[in-house]
Amino acid sequence: MLENAIKNEQTLNNVKGYRAWLQYSKIEDKRMDEEYRSWFSAIGVAGDTSITNSAIKELSDGIESMLDVAPTVNVDSLQTASIILGTYQDIWIEDYGMSPELFGDLNNEGYVLKTTPNDNGEKKILLIGKTDKGILYATYHLLRLIQSRKPIHSLDIVDAPKNQFRMMNQWDNIDGTIERGYSGKSIFYYENDFSEDLERIKDYARLLSSTGLNAISINNVNVWDVETNLISKQYLPKVERVANIFRAYGITLFLSINYASPIALGNLDTADPLDEKVRAWWKKKVEEIYQYIPDFGGFIVKADSENRPGPFSYDRDHADGANVLAEALKPFNGILIWRCFVYNNLQDWRDRSTDRARAAYDNFKPIDGQFLDNVILQIKNGPMDFQVREPVSPLLGALKKTNQLLELQVAQEYTGQQKDVCYLIPQWKEILDFDTYAKGEGTKIKNIAGGTTYNNSNSGIAAVSNIGNDINWTGNTLAQANLYGFGRLTWNPDLTTEEITRDWIHLTFGHDPLVVENIEYILLNSWKTYENYTVPLGIGWMVNPGHHYGPNIDGYEYSAWGTYHFADRDGIGVDRTVETGTGYTSQYFPPNVEWYNSLDSCPDELLLFFHHVPYTHVLKSGETVIQHIYNTHFKGVEEVEDFIYKWDKLVGSIDNRIFENVKERLYLQLKNATDWRDKINTYFYRKSGISDNKNRTIY
Amino acid sequence: MLENAIKNEQTLNNVKGYRAWLQYSKIEDKRMDEEYRSWFSAIGVAGDTSITNSAIKELSDGIESMLDVAPTVNVDSLQTASIILGTYQDIWIEDYGMSPELFGDLNNEGYVLKTTPNDNGEKKILLIGKTDKGILYATYHLLRLIQSRKPIHSLDIVDAPKNQFRMMNQWDNIDGTIERGYSGKSIFYYENDFSEDLERIKDYARLLSSTGLNAISINNVNVWDVETNLISKQYLPKVERVANIFRAYGITLFLSINYASPIALGNLDTADPLDEKVRAWWKKKVEEIYQYIPDFGGFIVKADSENRPGPFSYDRDHADGANVLAEALKPFNGILIWRCFVYNNLQDWRDRSTDRARAAYDNFKPIDGQFLDNVILQIKNGPMDFQVREPVSPLLGALKKTNQLLELQVAQEYTGQQKDVCYLIPQWKEILDFDTYAKGEGTKIKNIAGGTTYNNSNSGIAAVSNIGNDINWTGNTLAQANLYGFGRLTWNPDLTTEEITRDWIHLTFGHDPLVVENIEYILLNSWKTYENYTVPLGIGWMVNPGHHYGPNIDGYEYSAWGTYHFADRDGIGVDRTVETGTGYTSQYFPPNVEWYNSLDSCPDELLLFFHHVPYTHVLKSGETVIQHIYNTHFKGVEEVEDFIYKWDKLVGSIDNRIFENVKERLYLQLKNATDWRDKINTYFYRKSGISDNKNRTIY
Repeated sequence: MLENAIKNEQTLNNVKGYRAWLQYSKIEDKRMDEEYRSWFSAIGVAGDTSITNSAIKELSDGIESMLDVAPTVNVDSLQTASIILGTYQDIWIEDYGMSPELFGDLNNEGYVLKTTPNDNGEKKILLIGKTDKGILYATYHLLRLIQSRKPIHSLDIVDAPKNQFRMMNQWDNIDGTIERGYSGKSIFYYENDFSEDLERIKDYARLLSSTGLNAISINNVNVWDVETNLISKQYLPKVERVANIFRAYGITLFLSINYASPIALGNLDTADPLDEKVRAWWKKKVEEIYQYIPDFGGFIVKADSENRPGPFSYDRDHADGANVLAEALKPFNGILIWRCFVYNNLQDWRDRSTDRARAAYDNFKPIDGQFLDNVILQIKNGPMDFQVREPVSPLLGALKKTNQLLELQVAQEYTGQQKDVCYLIPQWKEILDFDTYAKGEGTKIKNIAGGTTYNNSNSGIAAVSNIGNDINWTGNTLAQANLYGFGRLTWNPDLTTEEITRDWIHLTFGHDPLVVENIEYILLNSWKTYENYTVPLGIGWMVNPGHHYGPNIDGYEYSAWGTYHFADRDGIGVDRTVETGTGYTSQYFPPNVEWYNSLDSCPDELLLFFHHVPYTHVLKSGETVIQHIYNTHFKGVEEVEDFIYKWDKLVGSIDNRIFENVKERLYLQLKNATDWRDKINTYFYRKSGISDNKNRTIY
Repeated sequence: MLENAIKNEQTLNNVKGYRAWLQYSKIEDKRMDEEYRSWFSAIGVAGDTSITNSAIKELSDGIESMLDVAPTVNVDSLQTASIILGTYQDIWIEDYGMSPELFGDLNNEGYVLKTTPNDNGEKKILLIGKTDKGILYATYHLLRLIQSRKPIHSLDIVDAPKNQFRMMNQWDNIDGTIERGYSGKSIFYYENDFSEDLERIKDYARLLSSTGLNAISINNVNVWDVETNLISKQYLPKVERVANIFRAYGITLFLSINYASPIALGNLDTADPLDEKVRAWWKKKVEEIYQYIPDFGGFIVKADSENRPGPFSYDRDHADGANVLAEALKPFNGILIWRCFVYNNLQDWRDRSTDRARAAYDNFKPIDGQFLDNVILQIKNGPMDFQVREPVSPLLGALKKTNQLLELQVAQEYTGQQKDVCYLIPQWKEILDFDTYAKGEGTKIKNIAGGTTYNNSNSGIAAVSNIGNDINWTGNTLAQANLYGFGRLTWNPDLTTEEITRDWIHLTFGHDPLVVENIEYILLNSWKTYENYTVPLGIGWMVNPGHHYGPNIDGYEYSAWGTYHFADRDGIGVDRTVETGTGYTSQYFPPNVEWYNSLDSCPDELLLFFHHVPYTHVLKSGETVIQHIYNTHFKGVEEVEDFIYKWDKLVGSIDNRIFENVKERLYLQLKNATDWRDKINTYFYRKSGISDNKNRTIY
């Protein structure tokens, strides 16, 4: 395989798919090349932290790659340099016409990127961070501008992240497998130990950091036997090694832990959070971890969910469960992230009064305010589980006195598993811009995640990673766009989908207009297309149990997972209204309660999530539900055919390995889409008995 | 576990569940005890083969166990013995008033069991075999009579098996797993080698032989990499060891082989049956095998099915494929068994013209007569795959110039997996008594399998075994009855279900009237009950894909396996008629063609296998199809409750370990039946919209 052929870092970095959006391709335009070159004879830098060193290395390498010049780097001798890096405290910024007040308002990761004359009138480009992290982000910003062929002669940029925690969750197991991984094995682990390929981990850190991410948890939230030992002496020296790599890129390391660690590692007879022995054990354990990693981020915990242990075993609630850990982490400024993917485990499909969608809110709303301030609840974007379409979780915004972290899934578990193209930025934008009305109109999810709504001490956005040791990181190379976009959007949720998409295409593929146009077309349409050929109108699921790829309309219909569509001969959908259904709609703030609760106002795309309607129900689009199902499913397949047509046009215009990689997957997607179309259409035709009004083939 | 606690043969043989129907319990009735004792002071035997030795050992041990006497055994000195064993050539039978002509008509496994005075007027019981095999079967017969407390003072029995091959197929893999095994791991293999527990294999041989079976294949018909080596020097010495064990009980050993062996073992570049190198390789390989096992039975082959290699890979047909092997086996009187579970592999659910049910007939009927006479085609009882109800395969009887072996499945793959009780003798009786009309009225399956219809040189009945290394062999102890009954029925298909059932209960549990009555009730009703709560009216499937336990109504509906029900809002069933369907019905002989083809005459229990009908179609029973579905599913659960009630009455009256074993499984069965009931009823209620006319709960 390719992996064997390409052995060392140098070679890997020659693979365009591997370089992802850090291509730093040679600038072909002579005029531009000269313009940029004029700036890069010498770089000056104040400070010598691992992060500033990363910034300098990244800048030098990037410049050398793009301009074929190796700029000299002068440490602490800035006079002769035209590019100057430093924190606002290390650089005499008044000399460059900047006021220190400018930095007073910036958070610790903010920066100024400015083209400005010094007091001798010599033009300089300044990359000034509030701290060294800001320097690194400014560096990536400058490199991005050059990659995008933007002018740099009159920069005047002040920027800072809108979210405090911008986090990636790896669901990697220490045996090298990845739960919901679709891009090979883990880059972190190999056969029950840490991988020795630290360069690969460093390159991942570069990718994450360049998009603005600043935190990572490196093991699966389902913590099994061996992984439990990650916080023991056996593995901590190797965890430290990985933490050091990420630290140099401004990324803080977290670990997922087993709630039963006091039993498994400490030989205690209980993990009861209110037990004094347990409390003492965690304190000692945390102290030990911080001896290895002084800036350790903290723990992430999935407890009492899908058979993982937790406080419920001891009749304690989630607050008791989280606080014992938070208390231990507190002296070191550590954070305890408690996942809210919690429901009363299995339910009975015969019992229509129980509603899994209600579970997160029902579990956590009553204990709002009982968590310590270094606890963050990590809440999935929707009430179910990363479906192609579901409403925003009503828990987001409902917790007024508890820190919250929005959880997204970059891994395409239910959205094509990185075989099918499904660009998720448009979905995430919708989520972030959703108005919860939690504090009146304009209380958007992005404000809640940003921490401004309730002045949270800790908040932000996390996501499940989509990378593995595939040569191109993400299986389908186009799935790199989701990783990139997640980082950018998390730094600044106000960026438009188009800005992020354009940036990613330029950075990855360059500037050929046809390449830009066709890839942009495919990406921007792909989510809707995926939705078209899969589950209709927000109902969700209908996938094969277990692996979750491909259609199985009744696959979860009679299961214990609470994921039903209730299709019968007359209609389909889950009644979640207050009057006749599960009452889930009441978990939203007004006017969203009414908006979803009323059949008249409920938006088409979520109709079946909230209402059970006849197949003949007329949508706002003017189509009946059944005709909508037929139309979207025929359309979805046609759209994939169109993607193939558009992709085929790019042969020769982009790297051939990437071309073939995506082409192969587009054909898999076409097969998948056809499979979905025919099974869904047949299923509903058999049930409803209503013919397609365009007389297309339904089997 | 129990297995660890019970280590040696002695201890195992103290476990009643392990002894199965060879309990040989002490005779408590004094009068009877004395009556039997009077016969057993001395046993005389002529001949000294491994088989006569088994007979003597079996008889001595059985008698000692039942009567507490250890009879003396006089070899070749028969005067003083009251029980005399020998072949009709070794015993001077005229002295006992028997004519040698009596044996002329008997086949090689036949025997005479007779109470008769010698010429001195002394009463003797004679067990005279046509060969030593007959002696062994006579011995088991005599023991069975005593176990059943039958008088033996005036026996006059002549018996011989109606089927030439009475065969058990083990689907054991050499890693110790068993395909479709529900009773633990293999007794033959352990971690990629043969098991060293030869006593257990010997006890299995005793069980099989005591019911009349005479052949066994000891590895899975799916022959994977390691199993391919069973016919190599690596394993042949150990195969020989197992063959020796079975030989002593009159059982011939076969092996399943990998059709690609010439490539895998012989390093040839082809396995083309018409290639001379391949032909020569098989000849040499067979010679090698017979050096180890001079009476080796032959090969069993599953080729070109479910991705197994076969002659199709070389554009050869099944006859070419089989004959090359048969030719190699011929000089040694070896047999080549070619399985007909063959279909054009995967089909597309969208294509309604293809019908898996047609495949066996369509594949093999055109090449009838092209097979060598030591080839036997092994044909599954139905056209699909061991469903709880399916019609008899139309290939049985259709082949007029080809040897045939009927294949049944003792393993309860689709009939409860030895959790649920499902006694299959009634099903097999129906199959054996089915009139194919192949040579006019009265051409029953049992005649075809018996070889009398077409004077086949080789024929009989085979079945997939249901045993594993569970202490009681079969998971559910009641499943022992299927193994026992299979042997008895295969020896003599004219035995009634009631005879076999009574015998098994008496041999296993003794003679307590309540025990006999309740167990007989459960067994005799269990097949119908299983059918009641699972798939209705012969349609089949609706099981979970892969493991095949539990309901999943659409589980195979959109799959590639050709196993559909085509249920829509109006009706259900597969149209296999000549006029509007797949034409499968035409594969039967008249009048069966018409019988199945006509909606009027088609029997209720197979209706949906042959016809697509509305839910409102009125059955011969007077119920509509939908009401039949509801009624049978409610009834099925009630019947299981009744089984539990009846079983609970037996506490204290039977061995407690067996009582608990079955009780535990009856509760699993109740759970399974309830699951089936609710899912089936809900599924069809949602589809049809027709309410239960008794207003019972449907979810």
